[in-house]
Amino acid sequence: MRQSQLLLTTLRDAPADAETASHQLLLRAGYIRMLAAGIYSYLPLGRRVLRNIEHIVREEMDAAGAQEVLLPSLLPAELWKESGRFEPYGKDLMTLMDRHERQFVLGPTHEEAITALVRGEISSYRKLPVTLYQVQTKFRDERRPRSGLLRGREFQMKDAYSFDTDREGLDIAYNRMFKAYERIFTRCGLNFKAVQANAGAMGGEGGNHEFMALADIGEDTLAVCTSCDYAANLEEAEAGGTWIATNEQEAAQPEAERFHTPGLRTIDQLEEQLQLATHSIIKTLIYSGDGTLFAVLVRGDHEVNELKLAAAAGVTAVSLADNEAVRTAAGVESGYVGPVGLKLPLIIDKAVAAMETGIAGAGERDYHLRNVVPGRDFSLEHVADIRNAAEGETCPKCEKGVYHFHKGIEIGHIFKLGTRYSEKLGAVYLDASGRNKPMIMGCYGIGLSRLLAAVAEQSHDDEGLLWPEELAPYQVHILQLSAKDQEQAVVVEALYNELARAGIGTLLDDRDERPGVKFKDAGLIGIPVVLVVGKSAGEGKVEYWDRKSGTKEIISNAEVVSRIAGGMR
Amino acid sequence: MRQSQLLLTTLRDAPADAETASHQLLLRAGYIRMLAAGIYSYLPLGRRVLRNIEHIVREEMDAAGAQEVLLPSLLPAELWKESGRFEPYGKDLMTLMDRHERQFVLGPTHEEAITALVRGEISSYRKLPVTLYQVQTKFRDERRPRSGLLRGREFQMKDAYSFDTDREGLDIAYNRMFKAYERIFTRCGLNFKAVQANAGAMGGEGGNHEFMALADIGEDTLAVCTSCDYAANLEEAEAGGTWIATNEQEAAQPEAERFHTPGLRTIDQLEEQLQLATHSIIKTLIYSGDGTLFAVLVRGDHEVNELKLAAAAGVTAVSLADNEAVRTAAGVESGYVGPVGLKLPLIIDKAVAAMETGIAGAGERDYHLRNVVPGRDFSLEHVADIRNAAEGETCPKCEKGVYHFHKGIEIGHIFKLGTRYSEKLGAVYLDASGRNKPMIMGCYGIGLSRLLAAVAEQSHDDEGLLWPEELAPYQVHILQLSAKDQEQAVVVEALYNELARAGIGTLLDDRDERPGVKFKDAGLIGIPVVLVVGKSAGEGKVEYWDRKSGTKEIISNAEVVSRIAGGMR
Repeated sequence: MRQSQLLLTTLRDAPADAETASHQLLLRAGYIRMLAAGIYSYLPLGRRVLRNIEHIVREEMDAAGAQEVLLPSLLPAELWKESGRFEPYGKDLMTLMDRHERQFVLGPTHEEAITALVRGEISSYRKLPVTLYQVQTKFRDERRPRSGLLRGREFQMKDAYSFDTDREGLDIAYNRMFKAYERIFTRCGLNFKAVQANAGAMGGEGGNHEFMALADIGEDTLAVCTSCDYAANLEEAEAGGTWIATNEQEAAQPEAERFHTPGLRTIDQLEEQLQLATHSIIKTLIYSGDGTLFAVLVRGDHEVNELKLAAAAGVTAVSLADNEAVRTAAGVESGYVGPVGLKLPLIIDKAVAAMETGIAGAGERDYHLRNVVPGRDFSLEHVADIRNAAEGETCPKCEKGVYHFHKGIEIGHIFKLGTRYSEKLGAVYLDASGRNKPMIMGCYGIGLSRLLAAVAEQSHDDEGLLWPEELAPYQVHILQLSAKDQEQAVVVEALYNELARAGIGTLLDDRDERPGVKFKDAGLIGIPVVLVVGKSAGEGKVEYWDRKSGTKEIISNAEVVSRIAGGMR
Repeated sequence: MRQSQLLLTTLRDAPADAETASHQLLLRAGYIRMLAAGIYSYLPLGRRVLRNIEHIVREEMDAAGAQEVLLPSLLPAELWKESGRFEPYGKDLMTLMDRHERQFVLGPTHEEAITALVRGEISSYRKLPVTLYQVQTKFRDERRPRSGLLRGREFQMKDAYSFDTDREGLDIAYNRMFKAYERIFTRCGLNFKAVQANAGAMGGEGGNHEFMALADIGEDTLAVCTSCDYAANLEEAEAGGTWIATNEQEAAQPEAERFHTPGLRTIDQLEEQLQLATHSIIKTLIYSGDGTLFAVLVRGDHEVNELKLAAAAGVTAVSLADNEAVRTAAGVESGYVGPVGLKLPLIIDKAVAAMETGIAGAGERDYHLRNVVPGRDFSLEHVADIRNAAEGETCPKCEKGVYHFHKGIEIGHIFKLGTRYSEKLGAVYLDASGRNKPMIMGCYGIGLSRLLAAVAEQSHDDEGLLWPEELAPYQVHILQLSAKDQEQAVVVEALYNELARAGIGTLLDDRDERPGVKFKDAGLIGIPVVLVVGKSAGEGKVEYWDRKSGTKEIISNAEVVSRIAGGMR
């Protein structure tokens, strides 16, 4: 491709609202453009990278035995009501009415559509297992689209779905996808980690993993053990603490004792004013969930994990009660609420249950209690892991390593769905003994446009993007430093044709621009190999600039193709 | 691919509402499934054919110098209001409100989006010309979706747009696309014809061509000259008739004469009851357009072409006035309305103007006039081509051949848009002398899903589909007649592996089914070469069934691969 003909405009500056490196660089280097909030066009360079990603994904899906299909984007709203997801998705769903006032959903994911398809196609165990995938545009009306392609409202996905007769089959399909995902992300040049994840609105009874591209701007926190292979999203990561107290130990503690804490309502105030250790304080929070109030106890240095809490409470979602509700329910303002004598159900974090003794609100304005003993002073009937794991705490899986935290961008997610969708939508098969059974499903997604941005986020330097070989829009970027120099033109054309014959994708900067402009643009665009054809062209020499290592060396024209082909897999 | 693992269910019967062969066969052979009216899923076989079409289209677009982009499906409604197309598209547009009550259009086409993109990227003549294309899902809320993929509400398209500085550049881009389209449709094995077409709602000032797949079920009628190369959609086809009368000739005719025609209000009645030749009758119709009424004269044997009429009247659309309006305006019921003395503007078809004398309504109940002379008895101020050409009439272009009519399915449409969109949306460039000028645009579309159905419509026989080589989901279909026969299994596996090594896509029917079922399914599915491995397997012989010619011959296993590879391009 001759750059003089390519639709490509590089920008000196990115818009002020582009805060992440990937967002800035993809805009500046002319890969994408915003049409509306969270809605992007791919310019030719961006489309090429996206196509390269699609190609890798298709190759690995096919190799894993998945079959490609294409489902509609317009999905009847009834299907989503049948599965019970229409309401919970709420405003994230984009919906429309057709001319006959029938409601449709613009698919953000396709469990319903694929289950409805397969229930019509497969009725016998003899046609199972099967795994289907598609590469498609998805829609989700994010409340706050941001970071360019990282969180958009219209985006590209690969979604796959497996159908099996039993759990063992699901495990096989799941593991096959797990391995395919590892290959895909490796080929995309990503530094990634698979972590155990919360199932969220997808439901499902089995395990699930998120694939995370490690990046400081990631919205997810990953807890990774330094010793064993346990790694999980902080939303899901198991937190330590074991309830070890015995009745004798409890009895040995002195009585709980009231002390004056005027105006000291927060953990920070107690720590600063009275030099109390935060880990010795029991925080009492009032939450509401599905219309009921309950009290939640966590250590002063810990944070409630609302997903874990909702699961422990057996409700769909939880939120902190407001001040008014706290006063009414606990008889005192928040900050002085405590578990002793409280007339609300208690849910107690394991780490609190493991405390020998602690400091808690006294249930009375301006007072706290010390020597509060869990199990003695309040019931330990409902103990659960309801907090976020903390960085540096001992891994509860191996009890050897400690948690290190990383930030990550979710680029893939695989789920063992089980029968949630097949039961709701009636996707059943006849087993060998002639009985109807629901199919066992798994689902497997990769955000292709997000993956593109995640690679850009991980692969750039001060000059611009640095594409891994398989994703680069072109393999080689030739810069003809003087568009009018006849000697350079001859060398450039010969190289361009020779590379084309060798099947090496080449972008040729043949524009009538100053050398500085060409170097700057080549740095921004990020093609792995840059060949600079300048003054030494007459001597049969070009400069070979390896963008990633930054090394520049003078080589003879004759070496170019073998050098590049040799550097490629 | 082993058929036992493929998601493929063939159907004995197609649903009753599937009337066209392509719709029936694509359903029966397991290529597509309906999710909602006009909304289809592609099963693995259908997806493969669609991917083959996409591959051909991309190759030919790239070869024609077009650059691939990807624009969003969600388009801000303001963009469509800016271009003036939001209102005229009416209910065909699918629209939705996002969570912030901003309105979006689901793109049925992307002139607005691409023009808005390019106006931001290109500001100088030095970056022109450029042609961009994309392969994308489109949405159009058809009032009556039908014939499966032929007229859907969600469909696959390739759309391309060219931007030039002058008309000559547009002509070059247009011709390059014309040739690329010919190559694409030829590679898809279609019997097609390019015809001149009406621009419709797309607007534009230049020429435009439709590419039509010839098929009896086509909704379009094509008028094709038997002698010259003129071919046009009937909507657009020029109709004959030249105004040759002179004042002397007119004066030589007898006076117009009133005669009694009680109850004879239609052309058919006049022909049957009074044996009047339909071509000697002048039909007078009252139309309304943009709020005004006018009278329209065509010959009794001709049909008004409302697109031509609207253009001649200078209005956006026309419709026949109702009886009430006719009585009020003409003072008599329709059937007796005539041009003589009529107090309405007249638009006269060329063929009427060419009549020496004719019979027309008298403007009085139960009476007609004979010897009505155009130009003498009513003004010929406004004469135009406002009728459909008739089959068998002399081609007005060459005046040698006659029109033959064909039915066609529109699979592609190319337009010279000119500056319609660039002016409305401000896509201007600085020319060499530093002046701002609007870019000159062309647009070029292919309905990929419709193309798939059009090929199926043209390529089938009594047994089922017959895919052209480049589109077939697999090149070879091996039938192992007995799944349990060890000898057959050995031969089949050897062939399957050998074909795979030769890069020949193969579907292997390894199912435990009766031979009759396998033959029937192979006939339906339509893979070009079927290899039947049956009783002669032990002697190293297989049956080679060429689906298209229907020939079946016994060949040795050793010949298979060279035979198939030799038969392919």
